[in-house]
Amino acid sequence: MTGVDVLWAGGWLRDPAEPVLRGDDAGFATGLGVFETCAVVGGRAFALTRHLHRLAASLAALGLPPVDLDEVRAAVAAVLDAGGDGLGRLRVTVSPGAPGGHARPSLVVTGGPAPVRGAPHVVRSPWVRNERSPLAGHKSTSYAADALALAAAVRVGGNEALLADTRGALCEGTGSNVFVERDGELLTPGLATGCLPGVTRALVLAWSAEAGLPVREAGPDELPWTVVEDARQGRVGLALTGSLRGVVGVEVVEGVAVPVGPLTAEVARRFRARAADDLDP
Amino acid sequence: MTGVDVLWAGGWLRDPAEPVLRGDDAGFATGLGVFETCAVVGGRAFALTRHLHRLAASLAALGLPPVDLDEVRAAVAAVLDAGGDGLGRLRVTVSPGAPGGHARPSLVVTGGPAPVRGAPHVVRSPWVRNERSPLAGHKSTSYAADALALAAAVRVGGNEALLADTRGALCEGTGSNVFVERDGELLTPGLATGCLPGVTRALVLAWSAEAGLPVREAGPDELPWTVVEDARQGRVGLALTGSLRGVVGVEVVEGVAVPVGPLTAEVARRFRARAADDLDP
Repeated sequence: MTGVDVLWAGGWLRDPAEPVLRGDDAGFATGLGVFETCAVVGGRAFALTRHLHRLAASLAALGLPPVDLDEVRAAVAAVLDAGGDGLGRLRVTVSPGAPGGHARPSLVVTGGPAPVRGAPHVVRSPWVRNERSPLAGHKSTSYAADALALAAAVRVGGNEALLADTRGALCEGTGSNVFVERDGELLTPGLATGCLPGVTRALVLAWSAEAGLPVREAGPDELPWTVVEDARQGRVGLALTGSLRGVVGVEVVEGVAVPVGPLTAEVARRFRARAADDLDP
Repeated sequence: MTGVDVLWAGGWLRDPAEPVLRGDDAGFATGLGVFETCAVVGGRAFALTRHLHRLAASLAALGLPPVDLDEVRAAVAAVLDAGGDGLGRLRVTVSPGAPGGHARPSLVVTGGPAPVRGAPHVVRSPWVRNERSPLAGHKSTSYAADALALAAAVRVGGNEALLADTRGALCEGTGSNVFVERDGELLTPGLATGCLPGVTRALVLAWSAEAGLPVREAGPDELPWTVVEDARQGRVGLALTGSLRGVVGVEVVEGVAVPVGPLTAEVARRFRARAADDLDP
């Protein structure tokens, strides 16, 4: 999270430099918390309802106290109003707050400019995603492993790291889901790999199905980690999806320029058109 | 972290209820940070030098900015002074602070009463430790998976969860290292399992070696996950080590009373005696 321009916490907008969290906040002390990141399009948070649904579902699944979604919506509206045209992304972070009987969840909503990224350039991470973690499939604030994997990729010239699961299946990126274009199909790893049930991923699957395009979740053994090497050698195509990225074809794998598949290009085009038509699908 | 009585942040002691952290602190937002927990014995933090050494080493290994260890020692002294005889535990938490060029690390030191635990009762976790994570071997604040594994164990009557690594070796507990007493030896999993290089674990290994006791790190295949079932059936003994626990023999495995081995009892006795002699070994 860089370049926060607008910050809401504890009931109202604050100077981002003002302290708003206790030192014993469980989010700070033990990484207990969940977050959501939305693109801001035309002054609105894209797919906000889906993001809030996932936020609430993850809090419940992880046994964390619920947050008042009306309060979240009010905070989001305040941040969007204050940020105006300069906003390109919005983030909602919730932790259980400080320990103790009268604790209230800590809710922080921030807005900033859209991230600037070069052409999608992925690097294979030496580390793996643990699909047998209680956090698998949740956008937890215990996010340091992802932050470090991304930083390692950036150090070698990439802008996203791809991870396998512990059993050697392709899983996802640090802040994106991955798709593989192969033999006329576009496949994404199943949730059993521990990947996030991404909002953009879900929309791509649903909208492609409606359009009759061959885009689907892969079976357990369909996408082994070796597909990234296949991509590097130009035998298959890769795409990333994410709330801020949308759908983008991977153009570089570990420094090697690779072609973006025709189905990926078609799906990306349709995603942009349909998202522009409906900001809260 | 419960029952914080004394809290130091940003240069001085604070009311724990006072906000001291920014809403965009990287510790809160993305779980970037490390922490240390020490027992407080006779008004001093046991093995503080070892803990601070590990803290600094983990910050460096994870690519996080260093913290001023003199400032940490001053903060620890202030918390110990303020807490007096009521303190039984002390915690130091460090994050990189807020993003941006002029960011300073966030340093929070807290003190509270010693934890009250029943007889050591372990439960096998359904989740596993990821030994192929950039966080393996570091006491990171991206700690939610451990907090949830412990909570799950507590729900079924235990007070610690044991985890395997992803390849099926015994690894550690959520807040402890584990030892296995078998055939007259006391063995602890090697660091390749992703377990923490625990301060108490290291002292047990060093002090036992000096005393000529058969206590050592296990080889790669010596402690498969099935040893916990062996323990439940009384064929081997288990022990936990940790900064607040010291060395304790496991008395219950998943509701089944189990014997504490004679070597474990001997090592625990020696640990207590030697620790009492030297509060900063």
